[in-house]
Amino acid sequence: MRIPSKTPVERLDTPMVLIDLDRMEANIRRLAAWAAENGKTVRPHIKTHKVPEIADLQLAAGARGITCAKIGEAEVMAEKSRADDIFIAYMIVGETKIRRLLKLAEHPRLKRLSIGADSMEVAVPISDAARRRGTKVPVLIKTDVGFPRTGVPWGKPTLALARKIAALPGVTIAGLYAYEGQVLRAGTLAGVRRSSQEAARRLLATADLLRRDGIPVESVSLGATPASRFTVKIPGITELRCGTYVFNDQMQMECGSATEAECALTIAATVISVPTRERAVIDAGTKTVTSDRSAHFGAYGLVKGRPDLEFADATEEHGMIRMTSPRRRLRVGDRLEIIPNHVCPVMNLHDEVAAVRRGRVEAIWAVAARGQIR
Amino acid sequence: MRIPSKTPVERLDTPMVLIDLDRMEANIRRLAAWAAENGKTVRPHIKTHKVPEIADLQLAAGARGITCAKIGEAEVMAEKSRADDIFIAYMIVGETKIRRLLKLAEHPRLKRLSIGADSMEVAVPISDAARRRGTKVPVLIKTDVGFPRTGVPWGKPTLALARKIAALPGVTIAGLYAYEGQVLRAGTLAGVRRSSQEAARRLLATADLLRRDGIPVESVSLGATPASRFTVKIPGITELRCGTYVFNDQMQMECGSATEAECALTIAATVISVPTRERAVIDAGTKTVTSDRSAHFGAYGLVKGRPDLEFADATEEHGMIRMTSPRRRLRVGDRLEIIPNHVCPVMNLHDEVAAVRRGRVEAIWAVAARGQIR
Repeated sequence: MRIPSKTPVERLDTPMVLIDLDRMEANIRRLAAWAAENGKTVRPHIKTHKVPEIADLQLAAGARGITCAKIGEAEVMAEKSRADDIFIAYMIVGETKIRRLLKLAEHPRLKRLSIGADSMEVAVPISDAARRRGTKVPVLIKTDVGFPRTGVPWGKPTLALARKIAALPGVTIAGLYAYEGQVLRAGTLAGVRRSSQEAARRLLATADLLRRDGIPVESVSLGATPASRFTVKIPGITELRCGTYVFNDQMQMECGSATEAECALTIAATVISVPTRERAVIDAGTKTVTSDRSAHFGAYGLVKGRPDLEFADATEEHGMIRMTSPRRRLRVGDRLEIIPNHVCPVMNLHDEVAAVRRGRVEAIWAVAARGQIR
Repeated sequence: MRIPSKTPVERLDTPMVLIDLDRMEANIRRLAAWAAENGKTVRPHIKTHKVPEIADLQLAAGARGITCAKIGEAEVMAEKSRADDIFIAYMIVGETKIRRLLKLAEHPRLKRLSIGADSMEVAVPISDAARRRGTKVPVLIKTDVGFPRTGVPWGKPTLALARKIAALPGVTIAGLYAYEGQVLRAGTLAGVRRSSQEAARRLLATADLLRRDGIPVESVSLGATPASRFTVKIPGITELRCGTYVFNDQMQMECGSATEAECALTIAATVISVPTRERAVIDAGTKTVTSDRSAHFGAYGLVKGRPDLEFADATEEHGMIRMTSPRRRLRVGDRLEIIPNHVCPVMNLHDEVAAVRRGRVEAIWAVAARGQIR
C-alpha cells in the first residue's frame, strides 16, 4: 500500500492496524528505564510485533538483543533489523531446522545466536550437528516454573538435565529461562505480584542449585509483560524477555498491567450495516482482530472511547457491536477503533500496519516476520 | 518454499498444512453432483481456501462462478483464477472500496461482478458511482433468515428495501442471498435439516413477495455447508455458496455434516517436548491452527487417527497434547496430523500449503488471497 506521509488516519481504508507511535515509544522507554534502574537487560520478544523497525527502536532504547519464537522469525530479523544477538526461545527439533539454525549462526550481522532446550532429545542432535560444523551453540535451559507448556521442572530435574547438557561437546550452557504465563491468570496486580515473585523464586533457586554444582549460569531470564514491573526489582534475575509491553492490549488491562492510555495498537474499522436498534456490524472480524477471546469479559476487543459499545460477537469478516445507548446509535460509514484482546496474534494477521503520530500516518510498516511458523 | 514433486509428506518440515487431493476432489465432486441432480448452481465461497488453483478445480467441476468476502479476494481471483463471474457477498462501504469495485468490474476476464446490499446506505453510493461511470452493478439483497449478522429481515422489510433499490439508477436487483449460519448450532444432522428447511422457507417466501410486487428475483442463494445436502433439494433455491465443504473440519463433523474421512485438510506437526507423562507439546499452536475453538468439545483440533490424544490447550506457537494412554506415549520428534476445528481461518494463517496425493507432494500452492481484509 502506498500512503503519502502525513495522511490523516481517517483517510486510511479499513480495517487497518494503527500503531500510535507516541504511546509505543513511551511503552518502550518505560521498560527500558525500569531495567536500567535495576541493572537488568531487556531482550524483547519480537513475536508481538514482527516488525524490524520496531525491533530497532527497542534496541536503540537499550535492549541487549531480541527474542524470537521460530527460526524463520530470527532469519527475518537477522536480515532486516539491527539485532546482533538473537535468542530463539523454542525447542528446535528436526534436521531441516538444525541446518537452518547453524547456517543462521554464521550470519555476518550476528554476534550471538542462542536457543532453548528442555530435554536431551532436543539438545543432543543440535550438539552433534554443531560439533560436525566445528562450533558450539549457546543453550538456555527452559525451566518450568508454573506454566504448563514446555520446560523441565524447576529444581532438581533442571539440575539433572543441566549436568547432561553440560557434558555435550557442541553446546554451552548460557543460563536458565522460563515463561511465567501463569501470572496472566492472577486477575489483579496484587495477584500478579505474588505469582511473579514465586516464579522468580523458583527460577533463582534452580540457578543456585546449578551454580553450587559448578555449572555457570550467566542468564536468569523471565518473560511475561505483567510480571516485569515486579521481577525487574528481584536480585539475581538478569533479563526480561517481555513482548506485549510494546503495545499492550485488553488482556494486559484486565490484570492491571496497563491502562487504556498505554494501549498503542488499535484496529480502525467501519460500520457496514446496522440491522437492528441494538446491533451494528463492522468490517473487522476474527480475520482482523483474532478469535483470541478475553477470559474475563468474553468480548473480542474494546471499542476505544465508546464504553456504550460492546464488541459482542465476531465471525471472520464481521464484528458484531452491541449498542447499549439509544442516543448514540451507529450509522453505516461510522469509524471505530478497537483495542484487541491479544495483540500478538493480531499482528500475525496483517501484512502491513500504519505507524501513526498525532492522527497522521508516519509510515506503513511491513510485518516482515509475519507467518513465520517454522 | 521449493519442494520437489513426489516428495514424501514425512519429509516436509512442520508445521505445514497438507491438503489431501483425493479427499478434496471427492468433496468438490459430491457437491457438484448434488447440485447437478437438482438443477442448482454452485458458487463456492473461496474464503475457505483462498487458492486460485482450488477455485479452478471447483469451476472445472461445474461451479458457475465464485463467492468472495472482500474486494481484495475478488481482485486476486480475477487475476489468478479462471473465474469470470464473481459475487462479493459483503457490504461495500466507502469511496476507496467503491472505486476498486468499479475498476474490478472492468477486468477483461470478468463477465459479471455482483455484490450484496442490505441498506440504502450501502446501495446509494454504489449506484451513484456506477451511474457516473455509465454502468450498473448487479446487487443481491442480503436477507436475514435467522443468523444475526448483516442482512435486512426476511419478508416485508426485504420487500421495502428491494423497492427502493429497484428505483436506483446504477444498480440492478439480481436476487436474494442469505447465510443460514444458525444451522451450525443445531448439533445434529436432524437439527440441521429442520433449521435449513426453515431458513430456505423464509428466503423463498421473501422471493415470492418481491416477485408478486413485480421485482424480478433471479438468484435465491443460500450458503452454509451443513445445510447444502438439504437445501439442494428445495425447489426455488437456485444457488449454493458453500465454502467449507471443500475441506471440511471438526465443526462439520460435530454437526454430522462430514466424516473424518471427508476431512481433506490437516496440519502436520512435530512433538518438540514431552515434559510430563500426560503432556506432550507440538510445534503448532494458535498461530498455525487458529484459536477458533470447538463449541462442543473445547479442543483446538482432532489428532487424526489417535483418539488417545487430546489437543487440550494452545498458545501461539505451542499445542498442548494430553496423552490418555500410558502405552502410546509420544516422543520428541514424533509427527502428528491435526484436523482443525475451523478450516477457513487456518488457511488465512498460511502463506503456502502442500497439495498431497497418497502421501506424496504434488504441488506447493501459494494461498494467494490470504490476508485480503479490505
